[in-house]
Amino acid sequence: MFSGLSAFPLTPFTSSGIDEKAFLSLLARLTTAKVDSLGVLGSTGSYAYLTREQRKRVATLAVEHADGIPVMVSIGATSTDEVLRLADDAQRAGAKALLLPAVAYQRLTEAEVYGLFEEVAQRVSSPICVYDNPGTTHTEFSDALYARIAALPNIVSIKIPGVPAEINAATQRVLNLRAVLPAHISIGVSGDASAGNGLIAGCDVWYSVCGGLFPHTAKSLTQAAKSGDVTAVAEQSLRLEPLWALFRKHGGSIRVMAAAAAILGLAGEHSLPRPLRALSASDQREVQQVIETLGLS
Amino acid sequence: MFSGLSAFPLTPFTSSGIDEKAFLSLLARLTTAKVDSLGVLGSTGSYAYLTREQRKRVATLAVEHADGIPVMVSIGATSTDEVLRLADDAQRAGAKALLLPAVAYQRLTEAEVYGLFEEVAQRVSSPICVYDNPGTTHTEFSDALYARIAALPNIVSIKIPGVPAEINAATQRVLNLRAVLPAHISIGVSGDASAGNGLIAGCDVWYSVCGGLFPHTAKSLTQAAKSGDVTAVAEQSLRLEPLWALFRKHGGSIRVMAAAAAILGLAGEHSLPRPLRALSASDQREVQQVIETLGLS
Repeated sequence: MFSGLSAFPLTPFTSSGIDEKAFLSLLARLTTAKVDSLGVLGSTGSYAYLTREQRKRVATLAVEHADGIPVMVSIGATSTDEVLRLADDAQRAGAKALLLPAVAYQRLTEAEVYGLFEEVAQRVSSPICVYDNPGTTHTEFSDALYARIAALPNIVSIKIPGVPAEINAATQRVLNLRAVLPAHISIGVSGDASAGNGLIAGCDVWYSVCGGLFPHTAKSLTQAAKSGDVTAVAEQSLRLEPLWALFRKHGGSIRVMAAAAAILGLAGEHSLPRPLRALSASDQREVQQVIETLGLS
Repeated sequence: MFSGLSAFPLTPFTSSGIDEKAFLSLLARLTTAKVDSLGVLGSTGSYAYLTREQRKRVATLAVEHADGIPVMVSIGATSTDEVLRLADDAQRAGAKALLLPAVAYQRLTEAEVYGLFEEVAQRVSSPICVYDNPGTTHTEFSDALYARIAALPNIVSIKIPGVPAEINAATQRVLNLRAVLPAHISIGVSGDASAGNGLIAGCDVWYSVCGGLFPHTAKSLTQAAKSGDVTAVAEQSLRLEPLWALFRKHGGSIRVMAAAAAILGLAGEHSLPRPLRALSASDQREVQQVIETLGLS
């Protein structure tokens, strides 16, 4: 499950809690498109805004409706004790893998980050994907830290935050990373604008926000990469630039994807957990134009 | 309660949860010293690492053992729904004020930050102190945003992250802030190294980490400021520079204060919530030397 396209859906809300109907409609879109794996409760899945009970419920729903596609569940929290409880919950819900960020409130030292992964790796029986997303977690990983964590039991993949925009630099980045990691570790690219470059550069998997709502679009890019068609990958990624531009404009992908889900009729207009807000009407129209112009699906 | 010395104690942990005995011994130190108010479950009080139930328990313990000193309780969380639940809990526990940060996982827009404060201010019946600490919450407030929030009902104080090191610049900073805020808003300085300057510059209160463990030391500085003895404030703050240097060295005050609490026999050596770790033995010795040399109490 740590290769190809891993789709990260939103967790839509209503004013009274999780919009389960909308969540299931998003899942159905992904299972119908046969993505390679599902990454629920990622940053886009708003794990950081949910109670433990809500996270248990979302994990259970995802596994029940995954149609055989393996489900990875984020177990991120600031406190190690809470992470361990969430790991137990996710495993009981049937998650096939755990996605573990090091969420900082107090900035963490390298020893503290390692200690978190060590404790969780020793406790769980499921594969763990290391989640590196400093923009939200405020924890940075050095390559030396990646290497130490990757040597722990149960660590199988690293979700890196992106690769350089220049293809030779991107390739060198992935090579450098491979050189310090055990051979069994899958490297996954995230930061959707980086995906094309990351896959060409040799990443095994695309942990994809775009793929959480537009699985056909994301699958096409992933399959071009798998078949080694570097030109097609570069062309498709470049063609999607207006979508990446919207992500940049709105400080990340989540508000854009929430607007897109509403435009597609898959979630309500106010589907983000407060204090997050929906895009303005004019920004929503821009999202709609990009969906239509690019034929995202 | 929004003037003078507001002391922010640690919430010590053992391997099985909150170390209530240690927490009460810290509180006793502060009530004996008659600080002006208590700020429990601040960043130093590790609110971001506790469950809702643990926070309810700490708030209740603090109010029960405050010996008549008013207690402010932090209600910070990423989700507005959780903030509202925590506000209810804190008010029911008898908190006299609520400390409200805008904790970001996804970076918040100004409209989202304002929306959070608006919703909470309309819901609660207790005074609210705005908590601005971008180093941990990753939310920054413009002065215009301060002004809009300060105009909401129940907002009574703003805990600012610090003032410039140069005294004329610090005074100008506080004057500029006063110019945009309603007259009833108390301005509180935090970032202990800034406290002397902040108080001289006209801040009403010191929201103090140092004061959470060394109330006599912090009170002396606060009282010198209250009596207008600018020279004494500057001298005392300068004398404490080795403590501020330790805070800078360890990326903030919490690990230093936890080490200090253990050295004083008020908490165990490993009193921080994991993944946070105790300082190394040699760093602990440095903390001990500073406590002894400066006669912190």
